[in-house]
Amino acid sequence: MSKLVIMRHGESVANHTNTFTGWSDVPLTKKGAEEAIKAGKRLKETGIQFSDVHTSVLKRAIVTAEIVLDVIDQDFIPEHKSWRLNERHYGALRGQNKEEVRKRVGDTQFMKWRRSFYAVPPKLDEVPPVRKYRRLGVVEPPAESLKMAYDRMIPYWQDEIAPRLLDGKNQLIVAHGSTLRALIKYLENISDKGIDGVEVKNGRPIIYTFDPDLDILDKTYLK
Amino acid sequence: MSKLVIMRHGESVANHTNTFTGWSDVPLTKKGAEEAIKAGKRLKETGIQFSDVHTSVLKRAIVTAEIVLDVIDQDFIPEHKSWRLNERHYGALRGQNKEEVRKRVGDTQFMKWRRSFYAVPPKLDEVPPVRKYRRLGVVEPPAESLKMAYDRMIPYWQDEIAPRLLDGKNQLIVAHGSTLRALIKYLENISDKGIDGVEVKNGRPIIYTFDPDLDILDKTYLK
Repeated sequence: MSKLVIMRHGESVANHTNTFTGWSDVPLTKKGAEEAIKAGKRLKETGIQFSDVHTSVLKRAIVTAEIVLDVIDQDFIPEHKSWRLNERHYGALRGQNKEEVRKRVGDTQFMKWRRSFYAVPPKLDEVPPVRKYRRLGVVEPPAESLKMAYDRMIPYWQDEIAPRLLDGKNQLIVAHGSTLRALIKYLENISDKGIDGVEVKNGRPIIYTFDPDLDILDKTYLK
Repeated sequence: MSKLVIMRHGESVANHTNTFTGWSDVPLTKKGAEEAIKAGKRLKETGIQFSDVHTSVLKRAIVTAEIVLDVIDQDFIPEHKSWRLNERHYGALRGQNKEEVRKRVGDTQFMKWRRSFYAVPPKLDEVPPVRKYRRLGVVEPPAESLKMAYDRMIPYWQDEIAPRLLDGKNQLIVAHGSTLRALIKYLENISDKGIDGVEVKNGRPIIYTFDPDLDILDKTYLK
C-alpha cells in the first residue's frame, strides 16, 4: 500500500495580492513559508517515508517542498522538477488583480476562467522569451485552460509518479491549484462539470493511500 | 569554457559549538543561512548559469544549496544528492568538542586527525543503523581518513561532474570541508603533504574556469 501526498505551495506574493500568476515566478510570503513549516510538522506526525518529491519549476512550489523535506528530515531524497507540474498559464490575465478582472468582465466569465475545465483565458499576443524555459527546451504557451494543463500534466503522472507508486514507493507532489485539481480529477474520475467545485488550499497536504492496483483505498486531509 | 563553483555549507550548529560532526545531520545556524544568502548574492553578480547542482545527503549542504539557488533564481535546475559528497566520517570523535579533544590528545595528534591525508580518527566500535543510509543502500563507515573520503568522492567527480563540464555545462557543488579539500587536491594536483595546509571556509564560493580539456584556466575566490 503506497501513499501519495499532494500539496499546494504555501501563500505566494501573488496569492497575497490576489493576482493571476500562472507561470510567473513569484516567491512565497512569510506566511507561505510558515504554512510550509506547519504542513511539514503535520506530515512528520504521520511518519510517512517518501522515496521522491516532485515539484514544478516555479520557486513557490520548489521552496515549499524543500521546507517540508527539511522539517520532516528527508532532505536527502531525490527532488524532481518538471514544467509539467507548473500552474496553469493564465495568458493575458497574468499580473492582473483578480477582483479588478471580476468587476470588468462580470462574475460568470470570471468564474469560467477560474474554475471551468474548458475555458481558455485571453491569450498573450506575444510570449516574451524566458531564459529558464529556453534552457529547459520548453515553449511557453500563450494561455491554458484547465484541460490544457491536464493534458500536459497527466503524462508526468503516468511516466514518473504512477510507476513509483506501483513499486510501493511513497511519493510527495508539491504543485499548484490547477495542476492538483487536474490530478484530483484524474485520480477520482471527476466529471468535466464536477471539477468546477473542487478547490485546493495552500499548504494543506492530502494523503492518498493506494492498493497494489493503484485504486484509492483512503483519502485524508491534514489540517 | 565551463565553470565549476565549489562551496562549503554555511555555519552549522556543530561549527558553532566547535564539535566534530562528519555524517551527523545537523542544521544550519541563522548565521549559516545568512552566509548562504550572501554567497548567493555574490554568485548572482557573476551571472553564471548553472546546469546542475550537486550536494551531499546532509541537510547543512542541501539547505545551503537550496538557499543559493533561490537567491540566484535558478531553483529550477536539477539537484543531485549523493553520500559520496558527505563530510568525512569522524568516527568516535563525532559529537565531541574539538577543544576538549585537543587538550586530551595534544596538538600534534589533534592536527593529524584534522588535517593530514592518511590519519584515521578513532573508529566507532559499533555503527548505529541510520534509516537514511539503510534506505540509500549505503554502509556507514566506522571512521574515515581524508584519503578514504577522497577515494569515495573522486568517482562522483569522474562520473557525474567532469562529463557535464566537458559538455560545457556549468556545475555547482555545495559540500563539506573535507570533501572539498579532497576535490581541490585532485583538481590542483596537490601533494599528500601539501593538502595539510588547505582550508575551505564556510559559505565562500570558489570559481574554477576550465578549458575544453578540463585544465584549469582560472581560480577565483568570492568574498
